[in-house]
Amino acid sequence: MSLPTDAPQSAARTGVWLIGARGSVAATAAAGCAAVAAGIQPATGMVTETPPFAASGLPALSSLVFGGHDTAACPLPKRAEELAGAGVLPHGLPAAVRGELAAADTEIRTGGPLPGDTRSDQELIDAFAQDITAFTRRTGVARTVVLNVASTEPAPVPGEARLPASSLYAAAALRAGCPYVNFTPSTGLHHHGLEALAHSAGVPYAGRDGKTGQTLLRAVLAPMFQQRALDVRAWSGTNLLGGGDGAALADSRAAAAKNAGKNRVLEDTLGTLPEGEVHIDDVPQLGEWKTAWDHVAFEGFLGSRMILQTIWQGCDSALAAPLVLDLARLLARSHEAGLTGPRPELGFYFKDPDGGPPALGPQYAALLGFAGRLAEGR
Amino acid sequence: MSLPTDAPQSAARTGVWLIGARGSVAATAAAGCAAVAAGIQPATGMVTETPPFAASGLPALSSLVFGGHDTAACPLPKRAEELAGAGVLPHGLPAAVRGELAAADTEIRTGGPLPGDTRSDQELIDAFAQDITAFTRRTGVARTVVLNVASTEPAPVPGEARLPASSLYAAAALRAGCPYVNFTPSTGLHHHGLEALAHSAGVPYAGRDGKTGQTLLRAVLAPMFQQRALDVRAWSGTNLLGGGDGAALADSRAAAAKNAGKNRVLEDTLGTLPEGEVHIDDVPQLGEWKTAWDHVAFEGFLGSRMILQTIWQGCDSALAAPLVLDLARLLARSHEAGLTGPRPELGFYFKDPDGGPPALGPQYAALLGFAGRLAEGR
Amino acid sequence: MSLPTDAPQSAARTGVWLIGARGSVAATAAAGCAAVAAGIQPATGMVTETPPFAASGLPALSSLVFGGHDTAACPLPKRAEELAGAGVLPHGLPAAVRGELAAADTEIRTGGPLPGDTRSDQELIDAFAQDITAFTRRTGVARTVVLNVASTEPAPVPGEARLPASSLYAAAALRAGCPYVNFTPSTGLHHHGLEALAHSAGVPYAGRDGKTGQTLLRAVLAPMFQQRALDVRAWSGTNLLGGGDGAALADSRAAAAKNAGKNRVLEDTLGTLPEGEVHIDDVPQLGEWKTAWDHVAFEGFLGSRMILQTIWQGCDSALAAPLVLDLARLLARSHEAGLTGPRPELGFYFKDPDGGPPALGPQYAALLGFAGRLAEGR
Amino acid sequence: MSLPTDAPQSAARTGVWLIGARGSVAATAAAGCAAVAAGIQPATGMVTETPPFAASGLPALSSLVFGGHDTAACPLPKRAEELAGAGVLPHGLPAAVRGELAAADTEIRTGGPLPGDTRSDQELIDAFAQDITAFTRRTGVARTVVLNVASTEPAPVPGEARLPASSLYAAAALRAGCPYVNFTPSTGLHHHGLEALAHSAGVPYAGRDGKTGQTLLRAVLAPMFQQRALDVRAWSGTNLLGGGDGAALADSRAAAAKNAGKNRVLEDTLGTLPEGEVHIDDVPQLGEWKTAWDHVAFEGFLGSRMILQTIWQGCDSALAAPLVLDLARLLARSHEAGLTGPRPELGFYFKDPDGGPPALGPQYAALLGFAGRLAEGR
Repeated sequence: MSLPTDAPQSAARTGVWLIGARGSVAATAAAGCAAVAAGIQPATGMVTETPPFAASGLPALSSLVFGGHDTAACPLPKRAEELAGAGVLPHGLPAAVRGELAAADTEIRTGGPLPGDTRSDQELIDAFAQDITAFTRRTGVARTVVLNVASTEPAPVPGEARLPASSLYAAAALRAGCPYVNFTPSTGLHHHGLEALAHSAGVPYAGRDGKTGQTLLRAVLAPMFQQRALDVRAWSGTNLLGGGDGAALADSRAAAAKNAGKNRVLEDTLGTLPEGEVHIDDVPQLGEWKTAWDHVAFEGFLGSRMILQTIWQGCDSALAAPLVLDLARLLARSHEAGLTGPRPELGFYFKDPDGGPPALGPQYAALLGFAGRLAEGR
Repeated sequence: MSLPTDAPQSAARTGVWLIGARGSVAATAAAGCAAVAAGIQPATGMVTETPPFAASGLPALSSLVFGGHDTAACPLPKRAEELAGAGVLPHGLPAAVRGELAAADTEIRTGGPLPGDTRSDQELIDAFAQDITAFTRRTGVARTVVLNVASTEPAPVPGEARLPASSLYAAAALRAGCPYVNFTPSTGLHHHGLEALAHSAGVPYAGRDGKTGQTLLRAVLAPMFQQRALDVRAWSGTNLLGGGDGAALADSRAAAAKNAGKNRVLEDTLGTLPEGEVHIDDVPQLGEWKTAWDHVAFEGFLGSRMILQTIWQGCDSALAAPLVLDLARLLARSHEAGLTGPRPELGFYFKDPDGGPPALGPQYAALLGFAGRLAEGR
Repeated sequence: MSLPTDAPQSAARTGVWLIGARGSVAATAAAGCAAVAAGIQPATGMVTETPPFAASGLPALSSLVFGGHDTAACPLPKRAEELAGAGVLPHGLPAAVRGELAAADTEIRTGGPLPGDTRSDQELIDAFAQDITAFTRRTGVARTVVLNVASTEPAPVPGEARLPASSLYAAAALRAGCPYVNFTPSTGLHHHGLEALAHSAGVPYAGRDGKTGQTLLRAVLAPMFQQRALDVRAWSGTNLLGGGDGAALADSRAAAAKNAGKNRVLEDTLGTLPEGEVHIDDVPQLGEWKTAWDHVAFEGFLGSRMILQTIWQGCDSALAAPLVLDLARLLARSHEAGLTGPRPELGFYFKDPDGGPPALGPQYAALLGFAGRLAEGR
Repeated sequence: MSLPTDAPQSAARTGVWLIGARGSVAATAAAGCAAVAAGIQPATGMVTETPPFAASGLPALSSLVFGGHDTAACPLPKRAEELAGAGVLPHGLPAAVRGELAAADTEIRTGGPLPGDTRSDQELIDAFAQDITAFTRRTGVARTVVLNVASTEPAPVPGEARLPASSLYAAAALRAGCPYVNFTPSTGLHHHGLEALAHSAGVPYAGRDGKTGQTLLRAVLAPMFQQRALDVRAWSGTNLLGGGDGAALADSRAAAAKNAGKNRVLEDTLGTLPEGEVHIDDVPQLGEWKTAWDHVAFEGFLGSRMILQTIWQGCDSALAAPLVLDLARLLARSHEAGLTGPRPELGFYFKDPDGGPPALGPQYAALLGFAGRLAEGR
């Protein structure tokens, strides 16, 4: 599934600016990009490295330049060592790509707002946008894609004066003229105060909330029930998350944001939201791993009661990172091709996409169609 | 999801001749058809009762006339009572449709060959075909669809003189000029000795092995892994079956036939057959219920190891019966429209279909396309 | 496992007064008692019908006389029919024991307090106690055991003036001189206002919260980890409950009461409470059935990470009812033998017992020891 | 759970002779023993390091000297590195204990018989016994315990002239006057040809087949069903094994040997063997990990049908190694105390023990009693 060497890829370099640049997802994406580009790891999990994308003119992995915002201080090479210790990265990988990680770390700027920061929203947006623009100039990349891979923030409280942090970063991306991706369930561009800016910015954007586990399964299982005319009566689920996301989502407002996305695929596919709750538990002992249990009670012919259960055990960063690289490349190419506004063709990647079909199969077909159009430069 | 009353359905009545006419699937299909036609049960699980099929000219459920072959003696009304006792049919249903079941029972003829039967293959085929033709004449139906819903027979032994029983029945269907469906993994028309007959018979046919549980799941999960570029390393499964099928499949040759179909969707979708075995256990204590456990070991980005497990607990007859009714209607209409030969558009229903895509989504799309063409009479 | 006919059973009849006398557990207990006594059903699930209890002098099932309090109006025979429709009772059983159920129904009195009831706690206790005493006199039973099998009530709010309803009933039982069992997580006798009464009443009592699923499993699995010196790091669980209990426990205060009991076995066995939460979801579509999923992350030799998951699918009433009959018999015999106060020998039955070992094995051994002492009348 | 420093441990050193000395279990045991003795890893999973064994006079971990037979050539330090790469041993551990592993490796002798070996059984037994005796003399240990931790061999074919290899080694252990443990389902001492030798040898021995996963669970779950008078109708299971054992057990005769042990706990506890099969699949992709799925169909009160499922995901070597160390210490101390013959007190460790109760709880109680008797030197 490797890319042909004669693929018409952009010669120019491309910036990848990550909000949460020292987190697990960011470190895995940066380390993995370097490793795959160097040929020491296969591109498993990267859809854009499969043959249908070979002619789409996506930037080469070796041309991606990483930077970003974070409020954490742990340097990327150290973060990668921690991930290797936790079994997320292969042992030996952090050492093999230490140079690339150290280089990326020098391009990370302190984000915010931290407690006590008295700057106004506009001042923060300006400061973040200047960080991004300076990165673009300093590195000489043709363009920079901004992607939010930070921990989920609490759902916004109605009437709160300040924009959520994710929205400040999103506004900064648009202000800096950059394509934007929200890989989290945080607000980002989904804030009424940013609507005008989003419409006028003239950049492509996509979101939100990467589909990496339970919702990925639901996006293929719910259509199965619908196509077979089976009657789903209750769909219940529990997620056990270690890592930072578990702690962030233990806050009930953050969980509410995430669950809204998780339920959307059921409601959109089945036509109605079945009974059942979704729990997100913080279980630090699981480290970088997560487990999702789903229990679907459905009714078949003549009222017969049946049950499907699924258990998904995955590594969140390893599931998210290749999709983040995919999205950085697809948005960069979209920008190059002059596309603007929301990209419903990318619903394949998101729990709560900007339009498009809810089922994974049609979403994949839409993505392949998009790959074809990008090959033609439109 | 009920059919509009003004749908252009055939006024003529249609015969449904079931091989295994006194088994659980047949009894559930006959009882359920009567109950849904009478409006006392919803059509859950019947795809042909959903809106996209409303204009396809399918025969109405109330126009279906049941008969068939079996070697068992238990009358259909009694069989239905047993199924109600086992929780497959709602209590009260057998009594409510007793008349229809008793009528169908009078149209059941003794099948074969039983041990000691000295008739030749041709004599058996002739006898079976005459039974079918006599049913068609006696009941005055416009046409009769023959469907094999008998227990799985052992895989044929190379060099055996006699045709497998399922092939005798299949040949009889063609001899009688009837559309034919093989809902089991038995040989049926897949015998080199029947190729010429199948080509010349001028009837539509479809098969084989109804997709009602583990393989249904695999037909949506394998594409998910493929579309996400995840690397499936091992796919293992165990099926616990009560009922007659468990006993039949405990014979290793029958299991081999079934497993070939189960593995096909993996190989066709993933491009290679991953490690892992499929077990089929006979567990009579489970009665009419079956449980399928699947364990999928897959590799993601940078070699990370992850696992998906699924547990499917269903009632085999309740899963199969609505599909059998769907197929009877679709084949009848195909015959009326003059279609002949294998129908790859019906891969949605089968583990081991006659061509078409392996994934459920495209199979469903193909089925909807077929529904549209049938509406136009072609 | 049937009781020898020459067992030294009490000739006298015994009253069984159920709080929640028209609920699923009560109806299953009353119907099942009649069916087992009549020999039309085996005594599966009744520990007191196994050989070690044959000489303990327990009242015969045929000698039990049912009555109780409830605020619901649905007569017991009708409730039993509903349970048969839901698959909890065998079809035909409600009709077979209709006489016994109708007789029990005439002994049910309206409980309380209903909204708007202005009686004081003491007035309510007096009224309930008079109901129980009148039942004992009217039926001529030697003694009456009072058992709480009502839906779980919310955890009491500190500072609330009124006693919880479960405590009113418990006080009434003691006032009437009756042995008392709290099969629910409700407060019952665990209220500081009832301590003096409990000590002075001179009756045996036991509780609380019947151990019928997830906690039953935990009571054998937690000791396994402890005995093998494996290090449990996180124990997470989700319960999906239909029926009345799901709705009652969806109230977060009721769930808190139940979870305290569920966690106790872990803390008492492992020496520390591992990470992890327990969820109780109300899923009415599951009807009388419940599903419990447990996920145990544990560490073995040299820090190796391993996982055990369990899925328990049971019928709550069918699990509880035989234990309720066991407890009624054991408490009646304890009373006859002059035992008073809490009975730690019955920890086998409870999530949150009155002392004794936390592991099921030692609890079973304690119960067998108790059976032996009862045989000797002490 | 660390041992008090003033425990009355034997000052003398003790030999641990492992059959299969270069396998995963042996390498994990040797590396782990060194790491725990050095205080760089906790003793998780070692029952003999818990307080009840502190006064039993067991040899200290630091006093164990490793050697053994193997037909593989891979040196122990290299094998440990492989296990660290597979996630069984912590990274850094092989380097930290390289000296101890290299020393043990020099004490490994070539086993047999390899194909083409023309030596008679007696010649092989003599040769193996001489290897063991030479080790004891060379290292100056007070005594040597021989433990079989090799891959499972096929079940013996009736009438075969030669003793199974495991029996040759067992006979050699007795010939050398050494305590013997069979941690595998292979024949070992369970051969009629060795009965006389076993009775006359005057050494303690124990076996067989370490209880490390599915059977461990069954040893606590089967008693739960029995104690609650629930009626187990079918108990089915599937094991997915990577590593050498999966390949060895894929041979149907080896699986038969293993399954006999697995079923014994059910039959001994429940009084009858329920329906259901046990599968052992070789899934090399799982590496050192194994997964066991169990499905228990049971009947409760009034014939209600319920289901328990368990999924155990563990690392075989990490589960087995601490038990192997436990057994080496317990057998050494038994030998020192002059005990001979089979040790039913050690049933806690085995699927197919030499007598004693089948349930884990009573087995643990028996083990603790044994610990007490060893403390008293009897």
